[in-house]
This record gives sequence, C-alpha cells and structure tokens, in this order.
Amino acid sequence: MTAPIDFYFDFISPYGYLAATQVEKIAAKYGRDVAWHPFLLGVTVMNVMGLKPIMETPLKSDYAVIDRPRMAKLLGVPLVIPDMEGVNSIAASRAYYWQLEREPHLAKDLAMRLFRRLWVDGKDITDVDAVIDEASALGIDGDALREGLQDSRVKALLRDAVDRAVARKVFGAPFFIVDDEPVWGIDRLWMLEHWLAHGNWEPA
Amino acid sequence: MTAPIDFYFDFISPYGYLAATQVEKIAAKYGRDVAWHPFLLGVTVMNVMGLKPIMETPLKSDYAVIDRPRMAKLLGVPLVIPDMEGVNSIAASRAYYWQLEREPHLAKDLAMRLFRRLWVDGKDITDVDAVIDEASALGIDGDALREGLQDSRVKALLRDAVDRAVARKVFGAPFFIVDDEPVWGIDRLWMLEHWLAHGNWEPA
Repeated sequence: MTAPIDFYFDFISPYGYLAATQVEKIAAKYGRDVAWHPFLLGVTVMNVMGLKPIMETPLKSDYAVIDRPRMAKLLGVPLVIPDMEGVNSIAASRAYYWQLEREPHLAKDLAMRLFRRLWVDGKDITDVDAVIDEASALGIDGDALREGLQDSRVKALLRDAVDRAVARKVFGAPFFIVDDEPVWGIDRLWMLEHWLAHGNWEPA
Repeated sequence: MTAPIDFYFDFISPYGYLAATQVEKIAAKYGRDVAWHPFLLGVTVMNVMGLKPIMETPLKSDYAVIDRPRMAKLLGVPLVIPDMEGVNSIAASRAYYWQLEREPHLAKDLAMRLFRRLWVDGKDITDVDAVIDEASALGIDGDALREGLQDSRVKALLRDAVDRAVARKVFGAPFFIVDDEPVWGIDRLWMLEHWLAHGNWEPA
C-alpha cells in the first residue's frame, strides 16, 4: 500500500477547481487515494506570505485572465469566471470538514458540487444557504448541516486544517504533497504524475 | 516562416538558467528561432508588482529550496546554488545587449557562459571583470566590452529592454511569448511545446 496524495485547495481558486477535475483520475491510474484538504488562501497568501491575491497583483492578473480559460480548454473541462467580489469559501470549507466526519466519499462529492457551482455555473458559494443547497442535492441533511456550520467545534476543524496546511508549507492552490514531495500548481500535474510513475526525479 | 519564440529571463534566476538549457532544443524541434531577452526581475517583481523576491517570501522560499535541485535533475542538467547575497545581473545583461548589436550568435553563447558561471560553477557574475572574463573566453574584445559597459547608450539598451518586457506584461523568469501566447515558468515547458506542436490549446 502506498500513501495517499494530499490535495490542498481553496474553493475560490479556479486552478484548484481545475485540479479537482483531474487529481482522482491521475491517482487512480497509480493506485493511490487522494485526501482532499480545503484551506483558506487568504490566510496563507496574505497573512503568512505577505502577498496580494493574484487578481490584485499587476501583470500576474493579466496573465491569469489569459491563462485560466486556456488551461481549462487543455484539460477539456468547462470554466466560467464569475464576479468574485465578496466571495469567500469559509462556509463551503467548514461544510466539507463537517461532512468528512460523516461520510468521506460524500464530502468529495460535496466539494465537487461547490466547485462546479462557482466555476461552471458561475454562482456564489459564500452564503450558508448556497452550501446547503448543494449538500441537499446529495441527500445530506440540510438542517443538520446548518447547525453544524454554527458549531464552534466545526469552525475549529477548518482553523486546524488551515494551520496544518501552513505547517506543511502549503501556500498555493492546487498544492499536492505525495510521499513528502510538495508539488504546486495546475501546471505541474505532469510532475505529480512523474513522481507517481517513477518515485524519483530522474528524467523519464 | 513562423515567428521566433521570445525568451525572457534574468541571469539571477536559476529557473531562467534551467530554461536556457532547454529552449533552443525545443524551438529547433519545431523549426523556430529564439530571441533571448535578459531583463531585471527586481524591477518587475519589486517595483511593478510590489512583491518580494522568492527567497524572501515565506513558504515559497522553502518550496524553492526543495524544487530547484529536483527540477535540474528532471532536466538532466547541473545546478549549484551559490550565495546570492549582493549578486546582480546588470553588467551581465548590458554585456548581452552590447554583444547582440555585434554578433547575435555570440550574444547567446555569452549568456550561456554567464548562466553557467553562476549556476554551475557557483561564481559571482556581478563585477564587470567577471563578465569580461566570460566574454574573453569567447574571443570577445574585453577592452571594447569594458568601454561598452560604461556607455550611456548601452545602459539605455537594458533600460529599454526592461521597459519593453514590462509593456509585454512579462513578470517572471523564464517567461516565453510565442505567437502572442504568454507562457510563464520552467514548469510550463510542456505548454510551450504543446503550442509549438499544435498551435492551439485543444487537448493533445
């Protein structure tokens, strides 16, 4: 048995969404499981690294505007770019960790629905009602989830997840850790796959 | 005839060096020329984007320490990490543009020697004497180069090159522009090659 791939992302990252559409396929090819870890880019990028969000960074934001649609095209998946003003992933991420304690498989399904709501349907995921909407479509108990999202223990689950991500030096999305090798970026799926195939960094 | 690949780099970037070892091979495979454009990352990253250098950015610097040697290994090229305290590429970049007006082929050879001096031999390239040392090994007239490096017109060549890079929204190293498509990063050589092979972003 080999260790799972740790997959770190933030629902507000389009590259995180693009990676989510690919990582299970890649992992399955090499008999690996994937552990999904939503975290908050705002904490790592702004608080820990002292940087600005990409879309507020000159030059890099222009690049992202060009790059996001072509990367989606290359991966063969749909992508729309919604208005991200005021959008945050706190409720979505808490819902993930709440659901993970109940049924891990449904937690990933919920994550994918939240990703698609934002990056395929272009609809906001910030409000608790939006998150419950997606959960309910999977048969998850909306009232229980609403209660869970107010629970200080559930809030702590997300805080701890963010702290653990920072402790593992995760800083962007997507970010993979496989057998202690950190691999950052949607542009490095080839590198993740190289490691899974070879277990070393010798040229293929 | 197809347009050349524009290759932007800074001699102080190890990823720029790694790209320099690959780009001509990739271009030749698709019958393209490469136009090399050294620029100053300090201007784009710090002045224009308002960011810190990678090695002064928390988390990202830890990642770079792990990533640089494995990327060199994957590409099958040598890399040492020298002490970069006080190292800058101003004289090296001016020498490149000075030489480019004389004999473009030798300008690339000079660039490769400067890259290797820093990233293979681990020796500084900041001083004019270091730059002349590498130029002389190629049969370039050291006295003429020393004079050129003091020439305000040559200094302007570099300033203009940096301005043009920023105007084309180049912000990191390596940075490629091919047929107006910007491609950033040593981790995207596959993407550069995809464009060269297909001329579109359809899945391969």
